[in-house]
Order: sequence, then C-alpha cells, then structure tokens
Amino acid sequence: MNRSNPVGIFDSGMGGLTVANAVKKVLPNEQIVYFGDSAHLPYGDKSAATIQAYSVKICDVLLQQGCKVILIACNSASAAAYDLVKAYVGSKALVLNVIDPVVQYIAEHHAGQKVGLIGTKQTVGSEVYDTKLKAKNIGVELNSLATPLLVPMIEEGFHKNEISDQIIKQYLEKPELQNIEALILGCTHYPLIKKQVSALLGEHLEVIDSSLIVAAALKELLQANQLLSEKAEATDKFLVSDFTPSFQTAAELFFQKKIRLEKHVLWE
Amino acid sequence: MNRSNPVGIFDSGMGGLTVANAVKKVLPNEQIVYFGDSAHLPYGDKSAATIQAYSVKICDVLLQQGCKVILIACNSASAAAYDLVKAYVGSKALVLNVIDPVVQYIAEHHAGQKVGLIGTKQTVGSEVYDTKLKAKNIGVELNSLATPLLVPMIEEGFHKNEISDQIIKQYLEKPELQNIEALILGCTHYPLIKKQVSALLGEHLEVIDSSLIVAAALKELLQANQLLSEKAEATDKFLVSDFTPSFQTAAELFFQKKIRLEKHVLWE
Repeated sequence: MNRSNPVGIFDSGMGGLTVANAVKKVLPNEQIVYFGDSAHLPYGDKSAATIQAYSVKICDVLLQQGCKVILIACNSASAAAYDLVKAYVGSKALVLNVIDPVVQYIAEHHAGQKVGLIGTKQTVGSEVYDTKLKAKNIGVELNSLATPLLVPMIEEGFHKNEISDQIIKQYLEKPELQNIEALILGCTHYPLIKKQVSALLGEHLEVIDSSLIVAAALKELLQANQLLSEKAEATDKFLVSDFTPSFQTAAELFFQKKIRLEKHVLWE
Repeated sequence: MNRSNPVGIFDSGMGGLTVANAVKKVLPNEQIVYFGDSAHLPYGDKSAATIQAYSVKICDVLLQQGCKVILIACNSASAAAYDLVKAYVGSKALVLNVIDPVVQYIAEHHAGQKVGLIGTKQTVGSEVYDTKLKAKNIGVELNSLATPLLVPMIEEGFHKNEISDQIIKQYLEKPELQNIEALILGCTHYPLIKKQVSALLGEHLEVIDSSLIVAAALKELLQANQLLSEKAEATDKFLVSDFTPSFQTAAELFFQKKIRLEKHVLWE
C-alpha cells in the first residue's frame, strides 16, 4: 500500500456518490476510483448472499485498480458484506463501511436517547445498527423503519416536490418514528432529501447524514495508517457495471458535478 | 416438443405473474414453470445488452425444464431480447413476447387513432411499440411516456391510496398523454393499477392490459402447433434467482394466490 494509491468506493449504483462527494471535500488530494454496480441495483431488496457475491466481485476490480482502502458506500452492502469484504481483502487494502462511523457518532452525541433509523429493507432487516449500538452499551433505544420507496423516488427525480413531501411524510408519521431525538438517514441516497426530512421533523431533531461523518472517519483511518495522499495526482475514475443515459443523469445528481462514467462489466 | 410439457414464463421479477395468472385462467390444463429474475430486477432501467445476457441464461433454465414454449412476460425483456431469445432457442421451443399480441389488438381495435403508452425507460426508449405499429401501417399515432416510479410504487404496496393516485395523476397529466383514445399499460406490473388509471382517465378511454390478450395469443399459438395440454398433470413451479420474504409477498400480490418460490441461482 502506498500513499499515492487511490481510494476505492463502491455502491449498488449512484447513491454512494454522495459519500464520494463528501470524501472529495474532506480529502481533496485523494484520487477516487468509484464502482457503481448499476447492473445489479438496487441492493436494498436483495438477499445477503447475493449482495455478498456482488461485493466480492467488485473488490476484485478495486484491488486491480490498486486501491489502498475500500469504502463500502452503501448501507445494504455494509450490513450484508462488511465482514466478508474485510476477510476477503485481508492485508491488501484497508476496509471501511458507512455504518461504524455513524454508530460512533451516535455514541458520542446521542447516548441514552431514543433514535430513529430509516433505510432499505436489507439494512433494517439486518438489524446491524441495533447490534452495533447494543455493543456500545450506551443506552440508545433504536427504532427502525424500512422506507423502500425512497430510493426509486429520489432516483426518478421525485424530490423537492409535493409528491415526495407526501411520501416522506407518510413514512415519518409511522409509530416507529415518534418521540425520537435524532434520525439516522441509513441509506446513501437520502442526503438528497435531508432538507425535506428536517423541515417535516422540525429543527429540534438532528437528522444524521452519514456522508460527512464517513468522510471524516476515512481521513482518520488513512492518517492513522500514514496513507494520506500528499498531493492530487491522478484523475478520478467512475466505473459502472451497466451504462444508460439515466445513470449518467443520476450520477451528476448525486456527485453534484459533471463526471464521465466508464462501463466495466463484472461477469463476462 | 410434447403437449404435456410445461409453459415457461419469465420476467425480471414478480410482475410477470400477472401474465401467469391470466394464462392459468385461459389455459387451466397447462403446467407453468415461472422464472422471476429477482437477483437482477428491475430490468426497466438497464441496458439492452445486460437484459439480453440475463434472458439467455434464463432460457437455459426453462429449456432444461423442458418448456415447449417460452413466454417473455416482461415488456423490457420483450423489447430488448425477443429476437435474440427466438434465435437462441431455435427449434427447441416456441417463443412469444408480450408486445406483439398487444400490437395486433391495437391494429384490430384502434386503427387510425391516437394511442398512449406508459412503460419503463427501457421499453419506451426502445421504441419497439412504435416500430411494430408502423410496420402494421394502420395510421396509429403512438405517444409514449416512461413512468419509472410506477414499478417500485406498486411493489412497495403503494397502490389504491392517495399517494399512488397523485403519482399516477402526475404522469397521466403530462402533455404526451393528452387527447388519446386508448392507453397501453406497457409493463406487466401495471394491471394492479388499471382501476386507478381508468378512474383518472374516464370511462370513454380504453385502458389496455396485456395479460389477457397475451394469454389468448398463447392459446392460439399452442393450438396452431398442436401443443395444447389435454389434462392438468404436474404442479406449477416458481423459480427465483434471489429469495427474500418481500419477493414472497410481492409474488402473492401479483399471482393472487399462495405460491411457493424456489431459489435457482443463474450464475454459480
């Protein structure tokens, strides 16, 4: 592993680009190699075994690209495949998921409180946040709700309008999310609706968007391993397992600037 | 090929079960082998090449099961992979898609009219309905609109409520769908919202649900080839490339009765 090697980031599709965007803000010297598994998206409804198989294939690609660290920028894959990816990658690269940094943040800022979580069926069903918060032993009561329509709603451009307000409202009014003191946005697509969620919940309640928390954790991890890049050298790469014009549109929506997607098939 | 061999039906997931349900109504003596490619759903946003690769793999499974006919119960796959599947399967089985019977129905009932079509991005972008209707030379003006949020909306149980009414209404009010005399539901998920669509469009306008039209076309095809089963023998099979409890729920929603899904992985 070498300081100048790239940071690998992967997701089921384009949502993880919200994390990539935060990483570029916090670590402008790092080269990113992003892999969006658009041939298999969404992961949120799929089984753990299927997500694990896809994750391993993607890690092969990121290791071939010489990545010094692999950041799983997808809650469903972080829930289903983090332990496997860590074991599979071994000493070839560092591995980070999007859940542990948020759990650490909750431990530091919301101990003893009632906290809500929204995410895909995979993430919520895995109970990974529950397990990791319990292990911290900080008296957090976690109330989780699967909100599976939010990803397609956001990807199809239904956000910041009346319909998306109503869909979000219908979810937020469920009994699971009453009387909470903070809400975890447990999906890397959700930063795009953070303002709408905040407006509906009121200012007193913290809405926790993992992207900046995860980017800060990545910086710490690289620092601790003396792997921070010292100057910006190579250009970023954005690989996708399937290409359509709508992925291109979605990519720029999530990354917030123009990027060029390259097709890289996982199974020949 | 033998009369008693099964009818193979495949779709990206569970939506094609609306067609399987219609086939059981029209042809109660036929044994069905259904394949739902739930590891790769949805197909509607994916590229033609990717859908073609999945379709060929699924045909291998259906041929191994001895299917006498393969019915592509998915508009996106019918648009992207019908010619390939027909060439690939050759003389081993008959092949039918869900588009040709609807085009034939339009030719018989709506010649010279302005007709609307709603479907996935793949189906609409392929312009397959346009091409096939033009080849009929019946003076139909086709106006198409991609409505990508409808599939996840239906799969997540958002139908027959106020939010789904609003999402559907927002699509139906688009300029593309004004002053039409019939509307093709160009996706096998949409029969579940047929009543809502009809209520919004008014009774004067025919909403064309392909499932019964396709089932009737299948009956004709089997009859013409002397392949109609004479008595019900074997039980139906429902294979899926990935299994989760939510696929089970969706399957029963679309098939309208209890079924047992069996997992059958496409790539080992």
